[in-house]
Amino acid sequence: MIASPDPLRLTPLLAALLLTVGCSPPTEQAPSTGADTSVLASWADTPTRARIVDFVESVTREGGASFVAPGDRVAVFDNDGTLWSERPVYFQLLYAVDRVRERGEADPSVLDSDVLRAAAAGDMDGVVAAGHEGLAEIVAASHAGVTVDEFQASVRAWLDSARHPTTGRPYTRMVFQPMLELLDYLRANGFRTYITSGGGVHFMRVFAEEVYGIPPEQVIGSVGRTSYQVVDGAPTLQKDPGIAFIDDGPGKPVAIEARIGARPILAAGNSDGDFQMLEWTTAGNGPRLGIIVHHTDAEREWAYDRESPVGRLDRGLDEAQERGWVLVDMAEDWTRVFPDGG
Amino acid sequence: MIASPDPLRLTPLLAALLLTVGCSPPTEQAPSTGADTSVLASWADTPTRARIVDFVESVTREGGASFVAPGDRVAVFDNDGTLWSERPVYFQLLYAVDRVRERGEADPSVLDSDVLRAAAAGDMDGVVAAGHEGLAEIVAASHAGVTVDEFQASVRAWLDSARHPTTGRPYTRMVFQPMLELLDYLRANGFRTYITSGGGVHFMRVFAEEVYGIPPEQVIGSVGRTSYQVVDGAPTLQKDPGIAFIDDGPGKPVAIEARIGARPILAAGNSDGDFQMLEWTTAGNGPRLGIIVHHTDAEREWAYDRESPVGRLDRGLDEAQERGWVLVDMAEDWTRVFPDGG
Repeated sequence: MIASPDPLRLTPLLAALLLTVGCSPPTEQAPSTGADTSVLASWADTPTRARIVDFVESVTREGGASFVAPGDRVAVFDNDGTLWSERPVYFQLLYAVDRVRERGEADPSVLDSDVLRAAAAGDMDGVVAAGHEGLAEIVAASHAGVTVDEFQASVRAWLDSARHPTTGRPYTRMVFQPMLELLDYLRANGFRTYITSGGGVHFMRVFAEEVYGIPPEQVIGSVGRTSYQVVDGAPTLQKDPGIAFIDDGPGKPVAIEARIGARPILAAGNSDGDFQMLEWTTAGNGPRLGIIVHHTDAEREWAYDRESPVGRLDRGLDEAQERGWVLVDMAEDWTRVFPDGG
Repeated sequence: MIASPDPLRLTPLLAALLLTVGCSPPTEQAPSTGADTSVLASWADTPTRARIVDFVESVTREGGASFVAPGDRVAVFDNDGTLWSERPVYFQLLYAVDRVRERGEADPSVLDSDVLRAAAAGDMDGVVAAGHEGLAEIVAASHAGVTVDEFQASVRAWLDSARHPTTGRPYTRMVFQPMLELLDYLRANGFRTYITSGGGVHFMRVFAEEVYGIPPEQVIGSVGRTSYQVVDGAPTLQKDPGIAFIDDGPGKPVAIEARIGARPILAAGNSDGDFQMLEWTTAGNGPRLGIIVHHTDAEREWAYDRESPVGRLDRGLDEAQERGWVLVDMAEDWTRVFPDGG
């Protein structure tokens, strides 16, 4: 298995993306000057942090007007761009491209279309040019034809060996330290924390418990078609080509309700794909909190919003203030971005 | 809302079903002579009860060869015919028929097909004759065009007022007392208990927590199409016509894996629709238990298996022994069937 894409294979589009957004080497940050550094230690002492703390304190204050029973303290988090980075593209797509190349090396005949040959060659221009249909083909070629167990073993091996093309870090170290602290803080205050992501549920579950402390059943994501098959007497769950459900945009509230059967009181996202999840969450009765992570930090991570092909944030930026959503300014509100600095 | 179908409207098919299977008035049973009556009090002191207790004691004995960590103690239960009765037909279908009649009374023009007119007239022959397509039409007419909240309020009102056509009991009192005790016993021993049923997830959640102690997120079932819509500024989840997923047969292991992300160590069902769930569960490594509730009690409940159009049990009956599944003989193994006797 190849650890990471060869940087020399990065095509102009990808290179331009990376150059445009920039990415400096990791640097250690000064510790927070925040008031109570025992929680949310990587959050600066700004109004953003204060609003989050105020919310949590208000819903946990027994007898208070805003008290919420522990069973109703449900918090949902997008993953790509909210809990970990999503540049140059969603990390799951980088896994898929590596997997297509690997399969093509083992058997070139599987590369039977332009988009699969482009993926195998690391030609991200060709991948992007093939649009949604091409993407679906890559996902089918990399995510199907194996059992769920085999797929997850493959993802685990990839996460263990692959490195991010510009930071050189394992992908699981490109999670946001302040968000890890927020998850801990919420759970310490009786919240159940869930992932609700457009990413694949089988992909995310491989690392969600270890990295985020979120167990498999609290991971909600897109789902590929899966079938039950008895192979040589052994019952298996087979990943088939095709998507059963896309957990994005208006699909997020649908999936949350179908899976949890409850309306969250806190939702955090970073792109317009999270808009409906935040809208539905914060329109409920009683205290509610919507959080948008705004990627403003070209030095430590990336800076992008309205024009970005990945993680586009446009409507959310326009409406956050009137809707009372907390807009997290990564550059200002976070004293540290990644667990290992930066 | 009409409380229950008028018995005079029962058609020959339905009447024959009821007459064939019989149903006597509730009678109080003698208490169990079982060894430890503090748990599973309504289970007779038979090998069936012993096997269940042995299994639970073995997986919870720390340091024992069969010990299973609490986080892996996952138990899944079918609902119709396993946790509550399913005669004359699935109770959810009785709700649907009542709802179609109610809608037809308010506006006769909605009864625009033979099957809907049959349902409104309580003509179960006509309903059954229309096959799967007819059934889908009834479900669409009774389960769609409302929000999830409205649907669940309607189900709640129906459960509060409707009575079973032959026992006269509320449907929520036609649950099996021994299975309630089994759920309690498992939870007391660190199991997480789930419903995995062909019934609708929105329907079952209305009563699952109160009646079974199973919270909404642990209810897995069939799912109708649902869409997110902002109506007059209020975000709502709308139940649309059509089925998104049928949680039956091979769909059960698929749904369990997709929802929980774990393979259960105990599965209980009563029909061949549960076969794959039991097969997948019990084929896993380590200690596993498969349970089939065999409806053998024409006096206190109903007796049916191989030939039954509802809850058909054929393959499971053939293979239970060789697969090591526990076959619960309701007449022999249960000293009491319903919470209120019988």
